[in-house]
Amino acid sequence: MTEFADGIEIGPDFVRFSQRDDIFSRADWDPEVAGPKADAFYQGYFMAGAKARPVEGFTLRDYALRNASWHIADVFSDLRRGDGRHEGFTDLFTAHRPGSAALADLPAPARLTAEIKQIARLFGADLVGIARSDPRWIYRESYRRASHSAVPNALPEDLPYAIVIGKGMDWSLTETVPSALAGAATGLAYSRDATTLVALAQYIRNLGYRAEASMNDSALAIPLAIQAGLGEYGRNGLLITPEFGPRLRLGKVFTDLPLEPDRPKRFGVKQFCDRCRRCAEACPVKAIPFDAPAATVHDRSNLIGVTKWTVHAAKCFGFWVNQNSDCSICIRVCPYNRDYSRWYHRLWRATAATWMRGILLWVERRLGRGERRPAGWWWKRLGSPNE
Amino acid sequence: MTEFADGIEIGPDFVRFSQRDDIFSRADWDPEVAGPKADAFYQGYFMAGAKARPVEGFTLRDYALRNASWHIADVFSDLRRGDGRHEGFTDLFTAHRPGSAALADLPAPARLTAEIKQIARLFGADLVGIARSDPRWIYRESYRRASHSAVPNALPEDLPYAIVIGKGMDWSLTETVPSALAGAATGLAYSRDATTLVALAQYIRNLGYRAEASMNDSALAIPLAIQAGLGEYGRNGLLITPEFGPRLRLGKVFTDLPLEPDRPKRFGVKQFCDRCRRCAEACPVKAIPFDAPAATVHDRSNLIGVTKWTVHAAKCFGFWVNQNSDCSICIRVCPYNRDYSRWYHRLWRATAATWMRGILLWVERRLGRGERRPAGWWWKRLGSPNE
Repeated sequence: MTEFADGIEIGPDFVRFSQRDDIFSRADWDPEVAGPKADAFYQGYFMAGAKARPVEGFTLRDYALRNASWHIADVFSDLRRGDGRHEGFTDLFTAHRPGSAALADLPAPARLTAEIKQIARLFGADLVGIARSDPRWIYRESYRRASHSAVPNALPEDLPYAIVIGKGMDWSLTETVPSALAGAATGLAYSRDATTLVALAQYIRNLGYRAEASMNDSALAIPLAIQAGLGEYGRNGLLITPEFGPRLRLGKVFTDLPLEPDRPKRFGVKQFCDRCRRCAEACPVKAIPFDAPAATVHDRSNLIGVTKWTVHAAKCFGFWVNQNSDCSICIRVCPYNRDYSRWYHRLWRATAATWMRGILLWVERRLGRGERRPAGWWWKRLGSPNE
Repeated sequence: MTEFADGIEIGPDFVRFSQRDDIFSRADWDPEVAGPKADAFYQGYFMAGAKARPVEGFTLRDYALRNASWHIADVFSDLRRGDGRHEGFTDLFTAHRPGSAALADLPAPARLTAEIKQIARLFGADLVGIARSDPRWIYRESYRRASHSAVPNALPEDLPYAIVIGKGMDWSLTETVPSALAGAATGLAYSRDATTLVALAQYIRNLGYRAEASMNDSALAIPLAIQAGLGEYGRNGLLITPEFGPRLRLGKVFTDLPLEPDRPKRFGVKQFCDRCRRCAEACPVKAIPFDAPAATVHDRSNLIGVTKWTVHAAKCFGFWVNQNSDCSICIRVCPYNRDYSRWYHRLWRATAATWMRGILLWVERRLGRGERRPAGWWWKRLGSPNE
């Protein structure tokens, strides 16, 4: 067993993941997951299939906002739909313009790395880190929805670095999870992710180097994000960052630009999650483990040979399908889900990394923090920005 | 003569503008503006034609960043290039997905207006206002580059409102104007504008209403922005806003959503520009008037029958072509170009609206404010964010 990060160990039986086994791919081909309800869930992202209902958070207006917030990501994903591609989800983003034939004069790696991080921010990223690319996290095969089949992964394995970006999800929308409305937080983050990744990759190609922009396709983002120093792995199976807790979406640009990798960051998440089970308790379908990290394989959607907290993806996705929108309850209730622009939340974060974490958890529970707010609260707040 | 706004009067001889007479259209068909140098200028937005040179601000790295910052706007503009469209520049943005067939239940206009403004911000706008649509500012005909000809304007005239958005341009990049590097501030703002407009229009269509997203195509943005209360008209021919001064890019969504229009805003710009001639003096080709507003028509690119400060577009664009990148010197040197997050700049703005404006102008001149910073300053600052 090799320790990869706090809470993640890799065994000798490790097998690289195939995107065909991803729950979203299985929703397409695997009768255990696929079916009319899963299809209806996907159709809900088009207004004609939205199935709005007179329930707070699931009205036409909620779906209208959710679907519009996904729209930019959708446009980019669909650009090569005619070729059977679903870019950013099963395929790398296509390069739309040639880059530079000549190599630009660049500063030394340390300075270049600082620059590229700032440029990623200029293009819309909230967090940026550099990981060495790692074949373990690159899908051994990709999935093609058009043909319902596994296809070779187009991501070259000779690109030495991954620039990992994180885009924070809107806090107030996430407070209304589960709701169709809250899905707007997901859509907005992916829409921004897509444009940031595409522009950043274009910048690198414009410098004469190679770059491949990838969102949820081609490689697992979380282990790369951990290696890039963006955060730690949490019980809910998500990356937990000091800036947004678990409230963010990831993307990455693989490149041969000579960068300096970051180091993994530890700020007490593993020790906190060891004691905290808020996400596991709050999950309506109990898809999140209560126990210690283990080499659990619930079904083919899980990594083989990795000891970690492992989510039961089919249960999780089943809940999405049933409520006809994605769910982020495990984000909403996470004690790390805070607005860290406030000093007292930063103090909480520092305290959570000490022996006082037990007291914090007790207080958290007494306060009832992480309760769902009604979608009406969000709309009311939106329409009265100065109230 | 009708007063339209401070510094803009409309005479009885007013003629609606044809986009064929726009300087960028003329760069395509009018031998007075078009030619190999204008073509080379446009080719510079592709790396193969960038013509980078060993001059600070015009190196391969500068063009790489500028062109990448335009990239998202480029992708959207090119989506229907095969149909001869150049969306966001000569054509409305296409709707990519059908909206809702049913109308959503919506709050009363005042509340709906507050909501839509917040949603525009959620989608990336910095400023938002509502104008009544006004046929005077809608192009009497559009321009089609593919056929070098005027074509009917596809914007319906029965959409009663324009939601006008503004996206601030990066302050530090603009400090290096004129440079290819500084063009990144323009590109970034248009890239964000395009995605905000497309998503916002989709949201409105998802509510069951009509919406047409327009960037530089179909209608003049500045008079609509003035009517939407975003700012005042300045000597440099630009919109000057309390939040960014002249440092922003505009876009608009025309809609039949029942909104409440804003009122024009006055904060002393006309009186200030009456005395200040910083932009006129700094313009290397003297394209900006030194005199009082007049019904000047330098050439066919100017509005007929409007008394205002009028820029000589052919001189302005000629400078762009000569230096092989766009220019924003009149933005950089404008005394209103400030970072209004600082209290002392807000104090300056309030003082500039009083009789003390003359003293401010004298101080401004003594301090040498608005001087160009070398592109190297920007790159150095970028690579050392904590310095």
